[in-house]
Amino acid sequence: MNFNVAVIPGDGIGPEIVTEAQKVLNAVGEKFGHSFQYTEVDMGGISIDKYGVPLTEDALETAKKSDAVLLGAVGGVVGKDSWYELPPNLRPEAGLLAIRKGLNLFANLRPAYLYKELKGACPLKEEVADAGFDMIIVRELTGGLYFGERKTEEVDGVLTATDTLTYNENEIRRIAKKAFDIAMKRRKNVISVDKSNVLDSSRLWDKIVNEVAKDYPEVTLTHMLVDNCAMQLVKNPAQFDVVVTENMFGDILSDEASMITGSIGMLSSASLREDKFGLYEPSHGAAPDIAGQNKANPIATVLSAAMMLRYSFDLDEEADAVEKAVEKVLEDNIRTIDIMSDGMTLVGCKEMGNEIIKRI
Amino acid sequence: MNFNVAVIPGDGIGPEIVTEAQKVLNAVGEKFGHSFQYTEVDMGGISIDKYGVPLTEDALETAKKSDAVLLGAVGGVVGKDSWYELPPNLRPEAGLLAIRKGLNLFANLRPAYLYKELKGACPLKEEVADAGFDMIIVRELTGGLYFGERKTEEVDGVLTATDTLTYNENEIRRIAKKAFDIAMKRRKNVISVDKSNVLDSSRLWDKIVNEVAKDYPEVTLTHMLVDNCAMQLVKNPAQFDVVVTENMFGDILSDEASMITGSIGMLSSASLREDKFGLYEPSHGAAPDIAGQNKANPIATVLSAAMMLRYSFDLDEEADAVEKAVEKVLEDNIRTIDIMSDGMTLVGCKEMGNEIIKRI
Ligand SMILES: CC(C)[C@H](C(=O)O)[C@@H](O)C(=O)O
Ligand SMILES: CC(C)[C@H](C(=O)O)[C@@H](O)C(=O)O
Repeated sequence: MNFNVAVIPGDGIGPEIVTEAQKVLNAVGEKFGHSFQYTEVDMGGISIDKYGVPLTEDALETAKKSDAVLLGAVGGVVGKDSWYELPPNLRPEAGLLAIRKGLNLFANLRPAYLYKELKGACPLKEEVADAGFDMIIVRELTGGLYFGERKTEEVDGVLTATDTLTYNENEIRRIAKKAFDIAMKRRKNVISVDKSNVLDSSRLWDKIVNEVAKDYPEVTLTHMLVDNCAMQLVKNPAQFDVVVTENMFGDILSDEASMITGSIGMLSSASLREDKFGLYEPSHGAAPDIAGQNKANPIATVLSAAMMLRYSFDLDEEADAVEKAVEKVLEDNIRTIDIMSDGMTLVGCKEMGNEIIKRI
Repeated sequence: MNFNVAVIPGDGIGPEIVTEAQKVLNAVGEKFGHSFQYTEVDMGGISIDKYGVPLTEDALETAKKSDAVLLGAVGGVVGKDSWYELPPNLRPEAGLLAIRKGLNLFANLRPAYLYKELKGACPLKEEVADAGFDMIIVRELTGGLYFGERKTEEVDGVLTATDTLTYNENEIRRIAKKAFDIAMKRRKNVISVDKSNVLDSSRLWDKIVNEVAKDYPEVTLTHMLVDNCAMQLVKNPAQFDVVVTENMFGDILSDEASMITGSIGMLSSASLREDKFGLYEPSHGAAPDIAGQNKANPIATVLSAAMMLRYSFDLDEEADAVEKAVEKVLEDNIRTIDIMSDGMTLVGCKEMGNEIIKRI
């Protein structure tokens, strides 16, 4: 089969890690008889430098026409990169928000999984790390405070800023369905996170999630308050299978969940539309401090490409092959610097890509 | 001196833990020559049972007339206690929100400190626990999503819920000042947490915090995004001294910070007005599952009473005496069940109170 992939290298380590993921996709193509066509798209700081905006209409159109999007990372350093002297809607990260909205990517899936080979990096105590955990955070990505109306104005001479958190039942229903569908393929456990003791949007969230749950009698649904969830992630991460939550809570909790794995360089993510289309990117950022030094860990991006194979192209066997190759690399004690420990073999970004390809 | 304390036992373990804190206050009074008058006030479930609302006007008035308020905890179990069949604004927790707003308690201080004696309970790995940490989260408590306008309505036949996040410069300035004042008495380090890459309210927050910082040249100010903060708390809690943030972020992050101590039964909190007046309560909840069994840990409430002595009554020496007594109890290996470990002496709630008093 033939697939058209829009590739957004972005900023910082973005280009390096995306290159390795493309190499892996090509190896998969060769082995399984597919071909991947890539169209490069600018987004983030590099787009600002070229066109003055973090995402051009053309770039968005190219992404729209593709079968799926592979993204490295965008962004630089506030106070260092001149991008941050621009108004907020013209900064690198605004490109990310624009492409999410522009492509209608309402479902952000972020797996947080503890690799047994990397247990040592887990910041939690040994007994928790030993028990392991394997969860997926399903974050609503095109609603809530991120895309509500906002304004800053003087009210009686006092500067006042307002952001708006809105959800309607349709937005909640489609993300809830996505979470339940995913749970059906996993351990059939959904924890819905909100702040229903305070927010109207959370109470509507609760109600609609309960309605959707009726269509999934096999799935166990629990509601959890966001503050409690922030605690439980640290206390007992093994209790989580699928977590579903709104945009801002999902931003916070998915990052917390990433960190408790101790190896954010390993974590992939997918942002999906209602059909098979999606954007795939590592959970980590652009890490400008190590950019261009062949030090980045490409695994999160490679695993994001695997998610692309699975979710957008229905190539389960191919996705498995990539995931297994990554596991094999870890078993063979090959490590980039971020996951390095005693007795392991240290490799660079390129070499890690090559080692994965060898094992496909 | 003579102090008038409004006491809100509340629900669950509230009455038990508040009783011990009062015993400790009385012991302090005897030793240092003060007298504490207590007026009991109903709030939460108990108030609903008596008056149909979680906080009556009378109760609020009594609290207003006091020199300070000591609170146990409010709330029960959703799906079990009939309080949760009431509309949200009549549930136990609404009493808490009403008293915060009614008393203008805009500054919530939540220390998160790792007791070396309780290191074993810390869910983080040994090297992090060994390094220890000692931070205070300064949470804005009367603004933001908690008190903005909200509505649920049908828009073109689609149920839509909206909450509003508003901050004005005065609200931000007073909480920022509070945080910097506290930092001056500590390690002179403030981390201001927001989501300025998305929210207008966060950008105003940033701007005003920067302005306030100019009056505190000795204090180091850093801005941190909320998602990053959720990660850093797990990765390296020792980097935090004073954290200042808005209401909802503060709710989430202060609970996360509590949990990484592993001993939430030890953590006090203060909610302050612009003058010396404040409300003091443990960071933990009403724990209805162990209510009335003499199993609760009263230390968080006792330490909250110590904060009352310090912040509302300017009785630093007396506050020190309480804090030292608690430390001594721990050194003497006396433990309630929540912080119990091998070789320690297990005591109940009352007995813990008595042991603290003996050491004052
Ligand atoms: C860069 C930022 C706007 C973005 C977000 O908050 O969504 C990032 O933190 C993420 O989680 O992808
Ligand atoms: C009970 C609830 C409304 C409250 C809050 O969110 O403020 C609680 O979680 C807290 O932190 O005191």
